[in-house]
Amino acid sequence: MIKIAILGFGTVGSGVYEVLNKNRIEIAHNAAEEIEVKYIVDIRDFSGTEVESLVTKDFSVVESDPEVSIVVETIGGARIAYDYTKRALLAGKSVITSNKELVAKHGLELISIARERNLNYLFEASVGGGIPIISPITQCLTGNELDEIYGILNGTTNFILTSMVQDGASFEDALKEAQKRGYAELDPTADVEGIDAARKICILADLCFGKNVNPDSVGRKGISSVTLADVEYARRLGYKIKLLGRAYKMPLGRIAAYVAPHLISKTSLLSNVDGVMNGIVVHGNAIGECMFYGAGAGKLPTASAVVADIIDAVKHMKSRKYLGWDEAEEGYVVPASELVSRWYVRTGSGLKAIGEAFGDLRLISYPGEYPGAGPGEYAFATPEMSENELDEKLAGMDVRSKFRILD
Amino acid sequence: MIKIAILGFGTVGSGVYEVLNKNRIEIAHNAAEEIEVKYIVDIRDFSGTEVESLVTKDFSVVESDPEVSIVVETIGGARIAYDYTKRALLAGKSVITSNKELVAKHGLELISIARERNLNYLFEASVGGGIPIISPITQCLTGNELDEIYGILNGTTNFILTSMVQDGASFEDALKEAQKRGYAELDPTADVEGIDAARKICILADLCFGKNVNPDSVGRKGISSVTLADVEYARRLGYKIKLLGRAYKMPLGRIAAYVAPHLISKTSLLSNVDGVMNGIVVHGNAIGECMFYGAGAGKLPTASAVVADIIDAVKHMKSRKYLGWDEAEEGYVVPASELVSRWYVRTGSGLKAIGEAFGDLRLISYPGEYPGAGPGEYAFATPEMSENELDEKLAGMDVRSKFRILD
Repeated sequence: MIKIAILGFGTVGSGVYEVLNKNRIEIAHNAAEEIEVKYIVDIRDFSGTEVESLVTKDFSVVESDPEVSIVVETIGGARIAYDYTKRALLAGKSVITSNKELVAKHGLELISIARERNLNYLFEASVGGGIPIISPITQCLTGNELDEIYGILNGTTNFILTSMVQDGASFEDALKEAQKRGYAELDPTADVEGIDAARKICILADLCFGKNVNPDSVGRKGISSVTLADVEYARRLGYKIKLLGRAYKMPLGRIAAYVAPHLISKTSLLSNVDGVMNGIVVHGNAIGECMFYGAGAGKLPTASAVVADIIDAVKHMKSRKYLGWDEAEEGYVVPASELVSRWYVRTGSGLKAIGEAFGDLRLISYPGEYPGAGPGEYAFATPEMSENELDEKLAGMDVRSKFRILD
Repeated sequence: MIKIAILGFGTVGSGVYEVLNKNRIEIAHNAAEEIEVKYIVDIRDFSGTEVESLVTKDFSVVESDPEVSIVVETIGGARIAYDYTKRALLAGKSVITSNKELVAKHGLELISIARERNLNYLFEASVGGGIPIISPITQCLTGNELDEIYGILNGTTNFILTSMVQDGASFEDALKEAQKRGYAELDPTADVEGIDAARKICILADLCFGKNVNPDSVGRKGISSVTLADVEYARRLGYKIKLLGRAYKMPLGRIAAYVAPHLISKTSLLSNVDGVMNGIVVHGNAIGECMFYGAGAGKLPTASAVVADIIDAVKHMKSRKYLGWDEAEEGYVVPASELVSRWYVRTGSGLKAIGEAFGDLRLISYPGEYPGAGPGEYAFATPEMSENELDEKLAGMDVRSKFRILD
């Protein structure tokens, strides 16, 4: 019998409790041990509920109970969660988390504390919700040199973009609908501005390329500037607009790691990952390309990943899992503004200005065609160039949108 | 330093050797051990090649060498491979394989031998080539009760069907092209008739549902009867034809497990898995639906999975991986003819016969529309019924095609 504590009894924490109960028999069979929740730590009041007897506000009860061998941290944030995680590890308990902010910011330190004590710090649920992605990368693809990983890492923004593409909803209306359905927070900044996706691409890049990616070094552009005009122009070019987190190796040992809306080809599998679903593409020198798809958030899918990590920790009680990465040198992450791609641009400055800046190139549309575009509006696709080079050419122009094209 | 032997130096075996060399540094880092190929066992002559000094025709050299702790079996088939695998396990060596036939037929026995000796018998490469699927099922989704798994499990038939859908190639021409490109064997029976996919769905069902599925109990229908007319009628209905292996739980503890061409909706992600690629969908009660996509065959992708298993075996030298399933009771797999689904039917018997057999239903097309269809040809979709019920209704009619519809 393994006793565990759940820290934070919100959506994910209560989902973990629910899955542990619902699938008790399968889980005991798969872990070859029964798993019992001994404590739930939460500052809120749960009197009158079925978990009343398990709840404590005092983490030190868990910390000092030698019977508890695994702690599940689903508090979120990088303050209390950081404190409790560190204390749990120092008290000799393995920790399982769904907390992307904490892993992105302090994963390197927490893993090294876990390693020194022969404990596990596991975080499958921190990226892609229930989708198996951390284990595949760190275990199933270990025979490869991995050179690229990218994907739709945030379900809220994918729901919004899908509503814009499929239903012609404006960004504002789609956001409201997402909030109504509980997909988006009242303050949607972390999702909409790509902060959540940036944390996730950090963790993926950490694991794929072996060095620590500081979230502050990750260039970030959200989706609030995407308009229905852009959706329509992209469609004419055979593309859909998706918010991607992306990281890839560069020739001299540095890497790219950034989050931005991209035009991606409608013929790609990833472009068909719609609604709140996530899809993550990994490229390695033996496997080529593979993709992982599923629910990137939500109570039970996220709990599915947490519970799998609990089972894994039970099976690896005395043999640590090999997860980890090293410190990176200064300048390891190339600034996003230096990364080269083709670009989609929408401008109101007219043909003459475009021609003078870019020479001949492919126009996507003609003025007046898109409702409300106005007489001088054109959209076009540029050749490959960095954002810095692009901005130089666009200086002085009325730039309404510019997004990368994924080739 | 871990010493291994590779049995069978064909496409996969030589791919394993190539990947171990090419990614030597990453692999040593990930396994925390250097891995060296000490022997290659093959009856062919490799004199004059770089592996000459490693090759032996005599398996007993490997069997009796205590330095060899891991044996990689890429011989294929279930005779010599079975003999060598058993002997390797009995000699105390873990075995890694890409051999679906052997795992489907004798996996239960070989795993039990491995278990008794605290060894590993791993077979990630036996399903989905390089795609991580065995580990995700047995590790990342262990918190779920899994209730269904299905997918495109054979790249050769998917290439043929894709050529028919995208290029309008006939089955015969598409098969010839597949053979020319090396995707299909000179005798393509195992692929085209679904034998290969049946072995794979056995292994997946074994792992998902915990009991042994005998390949002989798996209903099998191949793609040789799919015509361009069917492709076109399916398209009008919003479907693509794909060969699926499929297994799901039934209410009273029995399961469905079969291979057959299906009409699948064009809006599903799986319908966009084209060419030689594979895609596998898993459904669990916590995660919902997730999908795994990638190259289902080929030298390096398959080697990628084998090498990951080698690394995993190195990391689990003293702690066996939890892979396995139990004996099943008689009648565990429901005969495919009893499984209920909607059906696509194409017949030359005319409207009157259709109406008398089925009453009112949705016609897909009208006579003469499809070139060469002939005056009495109609295609239609039926309500849900078993194949037995369908065949009863179709008795005496000129049935040109009948395929299941995946809902």
